[in-house]
Amino acid sequence: MNRREFNYALLGTAGALALYRSGLATQPKLRVNGARLNEHLKALSEFGKNPQGGVSRVAYSEADRQGREYVLGLMRAAKLDVSVDAAGNIIGRRPAANNDASLRPILFGSHIDSVPEGGNYDGDVGSLAAIEVAQTLFENNVMTRHPLEVVIFQNEEGGLIGSRAMDGELGEKELDLVSRSGKTIREGIKFIGGDPTKLSTVKRSKGSIAAYLELHIEQGGTLEAEKIDIGIVEGIVGINWWDVTIEGFANHAGTTAMNNRQDALLAGARFIEAVNHVVTSVPGRQVGTVGRIQALPGAPNVIPGKVVLSLELRDLDARKIDMLFQRIRGEADQIAQSSKVTFDFKQINVNIPAPTDTRIRAIIDSSAKELGLSTKGLPSGAGHDAQDMARLAPVGMIFIPSIGGISHSPKEFSTPKDIENGANVLLGAVLKVDGANTTR
Amino acid sequence: MNRREFNYALLGTAGALALYRSGLATQPKLRVNGARLNEHLKALSEFGKNPQGGVSRVAYSEADRQGREYVLGLMRAAKLDVSVDAAGNIIGRRPAANNDASLRPILFGSHIDSVPEGGNYDGDVGSLAAIEVAQTLFENNVMTRHPLEVVIFQNEEGGLIGSRAMDGELGEKELDLVSRSGKTIREGIKFIGGDPTKLSTVKRSKGSIAAYLELHIEQGGTLEAEKIDIGIVEGIVGINWWDVTIEGFANHAGTTAMNNRQDALLAGARFIEAVNHVVTSVPGRQVGTVGRIQALPGAPNVIPGKVVLSLELRDLDARKIDMLFQRIRGEADQIAQSSKVTFDFKQINVNIPAPTDTRIRAIIDSSAKELGLSTKGLPSGAGHDAQDMARLAPVGMIFIPSIGGISHSPKEFSTPKDIENGANVLLGAVLKVDGANTTR
Repeated sequence: MNRREFNYALLGTAGALALYRSGLATQPKLRVNGARLNEHLKALSEFGKNPQGGVSRVAYSEADRQGREYVLGLMRAAKLDVSVDAAGNIIGRRPAANNDASLRPILFGSHIDSVPEGGNYDGDVGSLAAIEVAQTLFENNVMTRHPLEVVIFQNEEGGLIGSRAMDGELGEKELDLVSRSGKTIREGIKFIGGDPTKLSTVKRSKGSIAAYLELHIEQGGTLEAEKIDIGIVEGIVGINWWDVTIEGFANHAGTTAMNNRQDALLAGARFIEAVNHVVTSVPGRQVGTVGRIQALPGAPNVIPGKVVLSLELRDLDARKIDMLFQRIRGEADQIAQSSKVTFDFKQINVNIPAPTDTRIRAIIDSSAKELGLSTKGLPSGAGHDAQDMARLAPVGMIFIPSIGGISHSPKEFSTPKDIENGANVLLGAVLKVDGANTTR
Repeated sequence: MNRREFNYALLGTAGALALYRSGLATQPKLRVNGARLNEHLKALSEFGKNPQGGVSRVAYSEADRQGREYVLGLMRAAKLDVSVDAAGNIIGRRPAANNDASLRPILFGSHIDSVPEGGNYDGDVGSLAAIEVAQTLFENNVMTRHPLEVVIFQNEEGGLIGSRAMDGELGEKELDLVSRSGKTIREGIKFIGGDPTKLSTVKRSKGSIAAYLELHIEQGGTLEAEKIDIGIVEGIVGINWWDVTIEGFANHAGTTAMNNRQDALLAGARFIEAVNHVVTSVPGRQVGTVGRIQALPGAPNVIPGKVVLSLELRDLDARKIDMLFQRIRGEADQIAQSSKVTFDFKQINVNIPAPTDTRIRAIIDSSAKELGLSTKGLPSGAGHDAQDMARLAPVGMIFIPSIGGISHSPKEFSTPKDIENGANVLLGAVLKVDGANTTR
């Protein structure tokens, strides 16, 4: 079966016809300009560049504003109809062939804000690749059946703020939280050209979007380790976060015999080991992390009387998270008894797992295969704007390898070739979704 | 054997003659006024009193100054010749019988400064009991062979500052350190009436003091648990303190597989458990504590890349501390390998063990036995001014029970009866040392 036959087989008759109409069938070698895309990435990396490498382009900072200006220019060059919505998201619209407004838009994009001392690939790759896809369609005179929207979501790293506004979930209370820029979210939205009093205009209704696609770096080491070109995201994991408080009894480190202690930090150490043990004792790709710890009073010569630590569990299956948590609680009960302390668990945050759309997964797979690229299904352990979009539309995510699995670090790196591959898979997937999606 | 015979037997002929001369032999029932002593303790507790109980009378605070004024008044009432030395220590002198200046002075006392949110017994009991002993001698017209000095050392809790000045160890650099009062040590010394430019006048030479005695609360739970009245301190433990730095690799808590992590906090947890295991795996009364921990970057969604924690080991035997440390290092090496991290140990402080004088221990034991009190030898797990005095003179320490072993806390408590017992043992021991010590 040659490539075109394969496409037709996958999409069925309606899809194949649509694909034909979309122009792809007549331009089987439609490809992005990988060199240009990588140049754009390099140019974007200048905004918020750190002397020691990497970038600090936190949302609502001056670097963020400058980076957004640069991106707006690229979008205009790609002949997108650009606007900033009331939440501060940048939207670049491309009309449908025949200006047929009855078909719902296909959205694709990512974000360009970074964590403090972050890297140049997380978000940037997906954002600039989306613009490159639009540029390629423009240069090749390809019109799609559906209208397209390239979306650069604002403040992904600070809590998926832009995509939550699109969900209608960004509330008044949250607007008053102080972001890493020092500005409140409300001030930040104004700073980047939005209008926090008009967030209702940003909200999209469920079913109003045909599909959302996002290209992203893996931020893990699986693809590189297994020498796979393209990851097909099966879903974005659920994240449950608890604060765990351990109460013992603070006492003099010199005068309190070892068998007479209620050492909250020793109990905390046993708990951390137990979390690791429970999470690794069952098969699967779940992860569990204790990332934050505070021991009080915190002096070398005082036995800690109180410890507060964070517990975070992630998996694609919410029931599995619950099962792991119950086992961890059981271990905590035993440690409480043997270490003469008490444990208290307070749930701080829950993100439910967001599965991707099986049809879009198949489309990404075929797009990659057509390019001769190897693929593998895997979960996204990180949160993404796609998880909010999954409440509104079928979503798909494409991963490219992260060298060493490093992310949120100046050492974050993906090769120019992988970036080009990812953008080409995105291009193919957008066109296939456009052709395959026959709903009006 | 009656009591007097017992005394004579213990002290030998020279001691018995001296004891006779000292007046004790003619006043076999010489006792402190326990009610008055406990009233004085209550009165002192008003200076720096916290609403929630206990006291915050950190050295060089206004509360410290007021407490010192109160104590100066008590010392004058006890007809001591009071002065403040250049280091800020309060010294109350009592001349020898016949004004014989050829015999070296016997010193006894403690401190009245507290930790922040401390209790009303640590230091206060020994200070006010020393004054009560002087008052009792005055009221009973007892003159001693040796001159006596009641010493209230300044800033014990902030690093044995007053007694280190007496050792000649308080250096210029240390004077610039900021104490818990917010003042530097230098400013603090001036604040309480000392003169930091004249510290050389405070220094005593080795051998210039006949003995130093200190009554103190145990600050541990051994005496109470074993229903013992009086603890005879065998020595003040050595304290070794290291800062331990564990380097792993900070990475995304969602995207980094469990088997691909270099989690510095997981390694830290294993280390804390190993410290506990090593310290409790050999017989003895040694203690080991991890009291302080910091995990970086310290976010719930980031695997900690770096952990800094404190390791403190205490024992009466410096070789045992070294042996335990070597075993802990061995455990750290294994954890480093299995957890893919590195360990670095930096020694911050070493206090060498300070054994008490065996003759003075026997004197304390006999003083207690004469009062019908039970005794037990035990180490002092806490540091005390006595450890500095041990460089200059034979020292002895008397412990009374701490209820629940609680110290450095508003819950610190010793019973009025135990306090009275301790003061009477101190009185007896001072007189016995005075009689027994025949060196000029």
